[in-house]
This record gives sequence, structure tokens and C-alpha cells, in this order.
Amino acid sequence: MSEQLEKRISNVFKYRVPYADTDQMGVVYYGNYLTLFERARNELMRSLGWTYKECEASGWMLPVVHAEVDYKSPARYDDLLEVTAYVKECRGVRLEIACEVRRSGEEAVLAKGFTIHCFVSTQTFRPILPPQEFLEMLK
Amino acid sequence: MSEQLEKRISNVFKYRVPYADTDQMGVVYYGNYLTLFERARNELMRSLGWTYKECEASGWMLPVVHAEVDYKSPARYDDLLEVTAYVKECRGVRLEIACEVRRSGEEAVLAKGFTIHCFVSTQTFRPILPPQEFLEMLK
Amino acid sequence: MSEQLEKRISNVFKYRVPYADTDQMGVVYYGNYLTLFERARNELMRSLGWTYKECEASGWMLPVVHAEVDYKSPARYDDLLEVTAYVKECRGVRLEIACEVRRSGEEAVLAKGFTIHCFVSTQTFRPILPPQEFLEMLK
Amino acid sequence: MSEQLEKRISNVFKYRVPYADTDQMGVVYYGNYLTLFERARNELMRSLGWTYKECEASGWMLPVVHAEVDYKSPARYDDLLEVTAYVKECRGVRLEIACEVRRSGEEAVLAKGFTIHCFVSTQTFRPILPPQEFLEMLK
Repeated sequence: MSEQLEKRISNVFKYRVPYADTDQMGVVYYGNYLTLFERARNELMRSLGWTYKECEASGWMLPVVHAEVDYKSPARYDDLLEVTAYVKECRGVRLEIACEVRRSGEEAVLAKGFTIHCFVSTQTFRPILPPQEFLEMLK
Repeated sequence: MSEQLEKRISNVFKYRVPYADTDQMGVVYYGNYLTLFERARNELMRSLGWTYKECEASGWMLPVVHAEVDYKSPARYDDLLEVTAYVKECRGVRLEIACEVRRSGEEAVLAKGFTIHCFVSTQTFRPILPPQEFLEMLK
Repeated sequence: MSEQLEKRISNVFKYRVPYADTDQMGVVYYGNYLTLFERARNELMRSLGWTYKECEASGWMLPVVHAEVDYKSPARYDDLLEVTAYVKECRGVRLEIACEVRRSGEEAVLAKGFTIHCFVSTQTFRPILPPQEFLEMLK
Repeated sequence: MSEQLEKRISNVFKYRVPYADTDQMGVVYYGNYLTLFERARNELMRSLGWTYKECEASGWMLPVVHAEVDYKSPARYDDLLEVTAYVKECRGVRLEIACEVRRSGEEAVLAKGFTIHCFVSTQTFRPILPPQEFLEMLK
């Protein structure tokens, strides 16, 4: 499972920007992209037939150990965004999910980034190998 | 335009709760309902053929002068919520919009509340009467 | 304990407004005042020799059942705010805490409001009477 | 000004974690660290005798073009955090500011990361060289 999974396993999530997400520069505040990435990851999971809620119920969770974002062009109030999320890599106890944000119907990437997660037991809070079913899902 | 408009002019907005909205009690943090109300108001406007973005472009805005929320039962991570927003009253320079939050497909109201807005000029920041087109829209 | 406790038991909390709290109107987004109220309530508790964290550790919590805010004048980026929180009433299983937001050193109230909380057991999630120590603290 | 400025120009900002910042894992939500970094950058500027508000008033701003965070150990509700911010590099039109988050009085770093900003004109929204006064300040 160490090969690049890039864009093989992906999903597009649509999101309408509320006033709440903007700042006084008139653009989406930089910190809010991480929430946007989370929403896109949730829907990526759902598109694969799972939900992250079920993961936690099954005894494992995926806390973020690293996150990064490149901001290329601002998103604005009332923009309909499309966030493409895809599994970039799943190796050992780590899972990397990348995201790209575009305005709906446009080519240009407004922001992109990725998060690295660690498979952790909800009981011991220690790293564990991903469940076999999860690895199956990625195939 | 002083009569009750209750539920004549309404719209239902669907929203999936992200982890970001929860707090350590395992429920949606109480402050986040106001953002949810805003999202529902935006979609109410859109359902009427307007957007709040166009309002601002036309020279008027609707800052909130009062907000209140009753919390009846908690919403949780990954819940698919339905937020019904409706114009409750439009009188003078004031507009009242009420919201009710339910889990999709369920009857029980999880939270409800309303916001009172004042029609304000984007130029002078002073109260103004609502534009005639807006009043037409409410009829 | 049904008498008005207004302003007898109060605390002032200082808060510097970050960019994150603003919206494209150039003012603090209306929903963020509820987070500000929470910060002020936390510090009110601490000023009384308790922390809300200890409450939860002792088996009871104080979920919000009602919140309201009057917005009078906007707070802006980098404003140093003073949020005065005070116990307004403690009756039966309910606790009401009011808050007023001012710019540091100024008289004018920018926003004010209150939250009503219910004493709830962390075990049963059912309403319980406030612990005796808590009532002592309010005297 | 291309040399490493690391930790020569730094400031420590204290922050008490509210319930609002936590998620249902019982820890500070990963996206909220970017707001925390912003707060620390604001106070770093202030410690140098400037405010970011004054920068914008002077005609330039510092939008974030890249951000990253390493999450090592979770921060929790009511933790008193210390966020050390320091100017890591200022080269051409770019400024890099790094942040480290610790629990007050503890050595261990809970999270660390950095943001890269671009000097931009508030009029043209185009990159500009940093004002001479700003470079002086960094010396």
C-alpha cells in the first residue's frame, strides 16, 4: 500500500462560503481552509462507503499530525467552492489526504494543501495499523 | 408590510456537521448555531431570487442588531441538519428572520431562534428604508 | 437564592480582537460574541475560585439552554475589549450569566446579552440541583 | 536582510483555551492553531512597536501565502498556552514567521509551524517591497 494513490480515490465537495468565513480583507480567512479540508475529507470517506463517525465507533481515529496549505488566490463571500479531496498515500500508520479548492466551474486552484493523519486507537490513544477493511477500501 | 409573514416565505437549508463545529461535550458548540442561521438566511435570500451579496452591491446591508437561540437538544458530529429559515416580520427599517434546526427527516426541533436586522446604507452606515424591490419580493 | 445577584458577582475579562473574528463588513462577526461570552464566563468562574473544568470533573456541567445578544455598535480588529460577566440569577436548576462588551477605557456598551445554563449531571445528562459549594460561592 | 533572524526577534503570547476551541476528541481542533498563530503574530508586531492595523493604514498588508503546522501533543480546554512567535526570515517581498505552542511553564512543544506572508499594496493588491521602517525594525 506504499504506492501513490494520487487522484485514484477522490471526491469533490461543494461548499458555499458564508459571511462567517470572511475577514476584513474581504476574503476567506486563512485558518478556515482547514475546516474546509475537514469537510472535504468527511465527504471523501462517505463517498467510499464509510464515515469517519463509524471509524471512531469501530475503535480507531485519525488525528491530524501535520497540515499545510498554499494560498494562491482568495475565495470570497458567497463563492460556491469545489474542494477535491484525494488519498495521496497510506503507509504504515500514516494516511495523507490532499485537497484542492476551486470556484465551481473554474479551472484555477485557489488553495491547495494536505493533511497527514495517524491511525490511533480510541482506547489506548496509541498508533495502530489501519484496519484491513480500510486498506481494502483503498484498493 | 407590518403583518406577520411567518412561514409564508421560507426555505430549508441542509448542512452536514463537521468535527470543527463540535466541542468536548461531543455536541455542536452553542456559538456555531449563529453561523448556521446565517447560512440558512443566505439560502433563504437565494430561494427568493436574490443574494445578500447583491444587496451589498446595491448599496444596502443588513447587520444583525439582535440574536437569540433556544437550545433544546444537541446536534452532533456528522448529523445532516435541516435549517428552516423564514421571514417573520419586515417593519420599518427592521427585518426579523427566524430559524429552526432539525435532524434531517425528524420532527423534533433541536434549536430555534431568530435574528433582527436593520437595513443600513453601505455608504452612510445609517438606517434606510428597505428598497421597494425587496418589499415586492416579500409579497 | 432566587434574589437578583446582578453585578454583585462579576468579573472583567480583557480580549484583543484578532483578524479571525472579523468579517468582510470590517467588524467582529455576530456569532463570535458567543465565544467571547464563554471566555468571560470562564474567567468569572476562575475569579470565584473555581474553574468550569473542575465542575465537569466534579460530575456536573452547565450546557447553554438559551442565549441572546444585543448588538449596539461594532467591535473591530485589534480592539482591546473588556467583557464584564456577572451572575444574574441562580434559581432551581438554572443559572443566568449576563455579559457586557466595551472597548477598554470606554463607557459605551458595544454589545450585551446573557446565557441561561442548566445544571446537568455528566453521568445521566439530566438536570440536577447545583452543588452546595456552588451556592455557597454565590453568597 | 536575507540572513536567518531566527529567535532574535520573538515574543511570547499567552492564551487560555475556551470550550469553543475544542472538538469532540476533547482537544483543540487542528484548524484553530492558525488563529492562535495569528494572535501570536499580532502580539509579536506589537512588541516591536507596530501593529498590523497600522500596517494596513500605511498602505500595505501581509496576506498569508503558505501555512503549515506540526501537531505533536494535544492542547486541551482551559490550558494556559504560551505561543512563541518569531521572525524567521524576511527576504524580498516575503516574510516568514514561525510559532511554537507550549503549555505555560512546560518545556514540551505541543505544536509548531510557520506562515509565509507576502508584502502587498492595499491599493493595487500587488506585491511590494517591505517599507524601509519595517526593515529597520527587524535589525
